Amino acid sequence: MADTADRPDFGFSLLARDGQARRGVVRTAWGDVDTPAFMPVGTAASVKAMMPNDVKGTGAQIILSNTYHLMLRPGAERVERLGGVRKLMGWDGPLLTDSGGFQVMSLGPLRKIDETGVTFKSHLDGSQHILTPEISTDIQFKLDATITMAFDECTPYPCTEQEAEESMKLSMRWAERSRSAFVARTGYGQFGIVQGSVFPHLRKRSIEALTDIGFEGYAVGGLAVGEGQELMFTTLEDTTPHLPEVAPRYLMGVGKPADIVGAVMRGIDMFDCVLPTRSGRTAQGFTRRGAVNLRNARHSEDMRPLDAECACPACTSFSRAYLHHLFRADEVQGLMLLTWHNLTYYQDLMKGLRQAISEGGLTAFAEAFHARQAEGDIEPL
Amino acid sequence: MADTADRPDFGFSLLARDGQARRGVVRTAWGDVDTPAFMPVGTAASVKAMMPNDVKGTGAQIILSNTYHLMLRPGAERVERLGGVRKLMGWDGPLLTDSGGFQVMSLGPLRKIDETGVTFKSHLDGSQHILTPEISTDIQFKLDATITMAFDECTPYPCTEQEAEESMKLSMRWAERSRSAFVARTGYGQFGIVQGSVFPHLRKRSIEALTDIGFEGYAVGGLAVGEGQELMFTTLEDTTPHLPEVAPRYLMGVGKPADIVGAVMRGIDMFDCVLPTRSGRTAQGFTRRGAVNLRNARHSEDMRPLDAECACPACTSFSRAYLHHLFRADEVQGLMLLTWHNLTYYQDLMKGLRQAISEGGLTAFAEAFHARQAEGDIEPL
Repeated sequence: MADTADRPDFGFSLLARDGQARRGVVRTAWGDVDTPAFMPVGTAASVKAMMPNDVKGTGAQIILSNTYHLMLRPGAERVERLGGVRKLMGWDGPLLTDSGGFQVMSLGPLRKIDETGVTFKSHLDGSQHILTPEISTDIQFKLDATITMAFDECTPYPCTEQEAEESMKLSMRWAERSRSAFVARTGYGQFGIVQGSVFPHLRKRSIEALTDIGFEGYAVGGLAVGEGQELMFTTLEDTTPHLPEVAPRYLMGVGKPADIVGAVMRGIDMFDCVLPTRSGRTAQGFTRRGAVNLRNARHSEDMRPLDAECACPACTSFSRAYLHHLFRADEVQGLMLLTWHNLTYYQDLMKGLRQAISEGGLTAFAEAFHARQAEGDIEPL
Repeated sequence: MADTADRPDFGFSLLARDGQARRGVVRTAWGDVDTPAFMPVGTAASVKAMMPNDVKGTGAQIILSNTYHLMLRPGAERVERLGGVRKLMGWDGPLLTDSGGFQVMSLGPLRKIDETGVTFKSHLDGSQHILTPEISTDIQFKLDATITMAFDECTPYPCTEQEAEESMKLSMRWAERSRSAFVARTGYGQFGIVQGSVFPHLRKRSIEALTDIGFEGYAVGGLAVGEGQELMFTTLEDTTPHLPEVAPRYLMGVGKPADIVGAVMRGIDMFDCVLPTRSGRTAQGFTRRGAVNLRNARHSEDMRPLDAECACPACTSFSRAYLHHLFRADEVQGLMLLTWHNLTYYQDLMKGLRQAISEGGLTAFAEAFHARQAEGDIEPL
């Protein structure tokens, strides 16, 4: 893709604040993203069981795709020849790609890390591959990622302070190499990733290293890896105040609705998580009154909508009884409908958060959110 | 559902003829069906991987659902309490249900046939059930089938003339019992099923028996069970001329596009088949130039549409390369898109057939159809 003069520069505008929470807009070559924002996950260049137009229809303005999966299948060069992920999958908004770091770390015995990068075997066919900061950044260029992520090591949890420090320092050296490999294009950006596990002084040093390099945005990595919500929140409280104000902040791989509400209150602008889509395939629906398992027999003759306040097709055109039947009968339509619902629920939540911040009412919004979640599901018929 | 005075009577109008082929309209309580018509299959109250509105959007005016599957799960009484299949699944057009006869016959050692009916074990949990003409008809009432099918024995192929005669006679006795059990409702109908295997005089006697009883429509059963297209066509040629003119004729379980074209030319008005939906889940796409296997590597970088003349979302918004990728990566979106395409292709074919009959150009239409199918797929890039 050639640069064009009429494409907007990549940028971030802060529109409002409410405590630590921020209401903003990320401007990209392919459209604006209102923050706080949730990015649906399209691992293999498809938001599973959804048409891209319907993803957009839920309110999503940006989606996430995956370097690791796409480099293996269909391959970065092939995706490049096909015009990039956005063109291939028919998504006309901005696209963020993760760097592959998180996935290759998860491969366990199939991977080997050294200063250069990570050598690993494909989970598909056992073929050997290597990811380095340079290779990951180049692949993300080929995928035509609007936002490229630096290649980092996601520090495992728990770990000692020394392990966390060494891992963070490696990630910072890799961040510098990622930045050097990044090819600037108008309206495109690259995010650095803060590491340092749950150690505040390491998080602070990581931020100093990243801001010295300079990125268009900053992600918080290495959280939601088993430390629990409380420790995630205190780590965020020790981290976000040190991040630059006029750049977007992205908490990677988070999370449950309550995690998102809490992280927004602690200054995070962007999120991604497989939870709404994955849960949509395992019969778990997110509602204003908490999560609901649609396989449960209590729904078998319940003609009420899953969430009466939701405007998605699953809630406006179908009943809990039908969703229950579809999941019991292993019908594809069940996961299509519940994925659609869950993505709608997440986007409605983000919309509510944005509005609350704009109006200075985030505390009340969060209280009402928690109170309704605590109510639990509607009474059985 | 109570009868209402403003609901149209069930009926069939013959609008045009072209040779043996007929252009007509089936009027039902829940809308008209232009014939020749193809009915997408929604076995378990879902046209697999499709939203009902999108099924309608392809041009389908009636769908088929399944007594056998629905009596086992979620159960006929439950479906009745939920308002019937149409209400449960959100399909506002007419619905035809098969009688369950074909499915229970296929159960092999799990079923036992006698004069009363069929005793069988559920393929889901091994529980014992019985289907008789009376029970099947009652279940279809509970499912709120707009068109109820008589309960019959689908004669296996090959079989001796004597076996075919005995089986046909049993089906005719069951047809009489099915008719007695049928509760008439305005705008609803019941179809008898012609049997007799490939023996013309048995087919003729079966039609005489069914027309003596009197049904709103007549189906041809016991074909597409292994006899091959040629024998199916000659059997149709020996059958349809004896069927009443002013009633719809339904060839059950057929078929491939060429089967449908040939059967329309031999006087058939209605079809159902799992082929477009099932093939949509196994990467086989139907096109104007024949069937295409999208898993084939030749499509991997082909940015052309599957069928350039098709207006479905798979063809207008996505490429062969993307469909190929989706099937290789086992992405649900692949089967969603290809099912949508295949149903669109089938409905486009029916629309073409209807128009050709109206204009007296069916022979030319069929020749052009076969010529294009014979061309084979577009040249690889």
